[in-house]
Amino acid sequence: MRVGILTIGNELMSGRVSDINSSFIAREINLQGWRIEAMLAVEDDFSSIKSRLNYLLTMTDAVICTGGLGPTADDITTEAIAKSFGLPLFTDEKVLAHIKEIFTSRNFVWIENNTKQAMFPQGAEIIPNNAGTAAGFMLKAAGKLIFVIPGVPKEAQLMFAGGVLPILRREFPQNEQFIAKETIKTFGLGEGAVDKSLADFDFAALGIAVGFYPVFPENHLVLTSRQNSQTAAEEKLQLACGEVKKRLNKYIFTCGEENLEEIVGRLLKEKKLTLAVAESCTGGLISSRITDVAGSSDYFNRAVVSYSNAAKTEILGVPAHVIEKHGAVSEETARLMAEGVRKISGTDIGLATTGIAGPTGGSAEKPVGTVYLALADRKSTICRHFVFRWDRQRNKIIFSEAALLMLKRYLQGEL
Amino acid sequence: MRVGILTIGNELMSGRVSDINSSFIAREINLQGWRIEAMLAVEDDFSSIKSRLNYLLTMTDAVICTGGLGPTADDITTEAIAKSFGLPLFTDEKVLAHIKEIFTSRNFVWIENNTKQAMFPQGAEIIPNNAGTAAGFMLKAAGKLIFVIPGVPKEAQLMFAGGVLPILRREFPQNEQFIAKETIKTFGLGEGAVDKSLADFDFAALGIAVGFYPVFPENHLVLTSRQNSQTAAEEKLQLACGEVKKRLNKYIFTCGEENLEEIVGRLLKEKKLTLAVAESCTGGLISSRITDVAGSSDYFNRAVVSYSNAAKTEILGVPAHVIEKHGAVSEETARLMAEGVRKISGTDIGLATTGIAGPTGGSAEKPVGTVYLALADRKSTICRHFVFRWDRQRNKIIFSEAALLMLKRYLQGEL
Repeated sequence: MRVGILTIGNELMSGRVSDINSSFIAREINLQGWRIEAMLAVEDDFSSIKSRLNYLLTMTDAVICTGGLGPTADDITTEAIAKSFGLPLFTDEKVLAHIKEIFTSRNFVWIENNTKQAMFPQGAEIIPNNAGTAAGFMLKAAGKLIFVIPGVPKEAQLMFAGGVLPILRREFPQNEQFIAKETIKTFGLGEGAVDKSLADFDFAALGIAVGFYPVFPENHLVLTSRQNSQTAAEEKLQLACGEVKKRLNKYIFTCGEENLEEIVGRLLKEKKLTLAVAESCTGGLISSRITDVAGSSDYFNRAVVSYSNAAKTEILGVPAHVIEKHGAVSEETARLMAEGVRKISGTDIGLATTGIAGPTGGSAEKPVGTVYLALADRKSTICRHFVFRWDRQRNKIIFSEAALLMLKRYLQGEL
Repeated sequence: MRVGILTIGNELMSGRVSDINSSFIAREINLQGWRIEAMLAVEDDFSSIKSRLNYLLTMTDAVICTGGLGPTADDITTEAIAKSFGLPLFTDEKVLAHIKEIFTSRNFVWIENNTKQAMFPQGAEIIPNNAGTAAGFMLKAAGKLIFVIPGVPKEAQLMFAGGVLPILRREFPQNEQFIAKETIKTFGLGEGAVDKSLADFDFAALGIAVGFYPVFPENHLVLTSRQNSQTAAEEKLQLACGEVKKRLNKYIFTCGEENLEEIVGRLLKEKKLTLAVAESCTGGLISSRITDVAGSSDYFNRAVVSYSNAAKTEILGVPAHVIEKHGAVSEETARLMAEGVRKISGTDIGLATTGIAGPTGGSAEKPVGTVYLALADRKSTICRHFVFRWDRQRNKIIFSEAALLMLKRYLQGEL
């Protein structure tokens, strides 16, 4: 089934409000195995609404309209759609009673304008709004379905799930399809290179759609398998995932929706290990990412952002002569930072970063983008050295990513 | 002038990515006094791109397309538009050299696929991309303008301002006017409340357009003054800014483009003061924001992310009995954290946060969203207490914002 989305409202066309209903509806429609044909935004204007709706109806089986159902004069969606099909309006007493009840319970003053929200085009099937006064409706015209729901995202989402979707399923039972999805997250390979690696396999022939989603510094792949049975969908998906893994193995850090800090947190919890962090060039970003995860206090003890050399010496115990001899940005300093923060915290693991985020501070030997990552446990210390080439903020992000990946590999026994 | 927006990409139609370019472009177009006629989203598909573009061209003078300029096989925008108008593609050597340079400087492997990003339809005017590899272009067809820029928001915004807008002004010179702009950044008032506060003044009558840009947790206002001379534009802008300041004074933290961490950094530098930070609930975010600013090592000494109580006691010297009696989240603990981090660092200022970011850990007395912020200097310590009501990650952001604002006010002698 092909679906169109029509978002209605001056606030969209002025750019004052960013439309989030369309992406929500699109996700839900795609999950059903249906297809979004076009998404169109238009102002609160009679002739525009009519012409844009008609345009969408030429290419779709159903159009979902959002917005313009308020009580004020500029909200004209219901009337515009009724006029488009030459239908008179009727007042629904049940909806009217519901609106009056809301006004009474909230001690709002009733004005006659509000009755407008209880009016619908003749023949409409009403979609109740349990979260507000603006009820929606569905209208059939020339074998096509037109849905109208409010623009307020919370109401739109509730009414889509509770009203639009059940009616769509009832009206298009033949379109039932089975879907299986997998997200594969990679690091260390550009979008173009990921794409090229997969170019020799025909995923489409297998009924698999491959989407690319760069989320700096990661590249995510989403494989969507659409088949006639759930078993077939899962089987084909497994096959396709296997082909991707064959080609991108060493760049894949996870399959699924978990992000890197969540994975690290889960592994630390599973292994009952605790962590402390010493950050120089990442400036607290690793710690902030780790503590973005609810419950991180179970395994995360502390971080020391030792930006000055004094902090490295005083708190972490890195001898001043080491910093003087090898530099604050060096393997020696990184190792001692990791060991130092582990020791003072009494944790199982110490993780440390020291590097040059830029734009200044680089040298021929240690250019901007240089970073040393060290990981100390009770037995030994490992150090890795990288040079990245981004701007200051993206260097910080990619340094923190590399450090968390190093920790993940350690926790999985791969380091 | 009537403008249409065509956003191109499977990730939009699948709902996986929410389109933020359209609202940005719509705001900017409206600020110029032009009008958005329709916004349409479509997948990466030849016939769909062609038909939707033609549809938009029937009702507009210019169409701005975003997305589908990547190096991968699914990115077909340039080719689709060339085919729509029966134009061959040509390779632009300057763009090709720019892309190769980016690959070399970042140590990426060059693959022939990438040459695709240097190809354009015959007759196209190239819009350079200084932030990435995907250059855009403008094409004239039947007296109408078709612009194509990348979908990556940062690139789209830079290229809209640096490429699309100047060409639109050149091609529609009747719209040439003198412009003055001011950004006013507020914190502590919702978008609706900001809007309502300004409703009693007629900015439009003064030739001033007011744009609203929520950047959590801030609300930015951009005033654009459009007049017949530069002097008039500046004068009217000053007048309008005065009216905004009258109404929103206590919520405005800056006028101009500087962000909060840059302001704090500049003030610390000007006053030759140094800073150390002790973070609990913010988990390193304050430190990370401060170190996002190049040159922050001049005034930022260190941060201690004392997530565990042990860290608060061992490093910062907060007595265990204080934590036991008043709680880790308390005014007493916050004060001692700020004093402790200042003392061990020998800095002029110590800034501390302790609170409950959520989702768990709240109580009736100290609900989720509670935060204590303390600032210690050589003479005294100040503490402030707030309760915010967001989710974990946004609580962290708003906590860090409130702490940096407190520091800013202190540095300006307003605390």
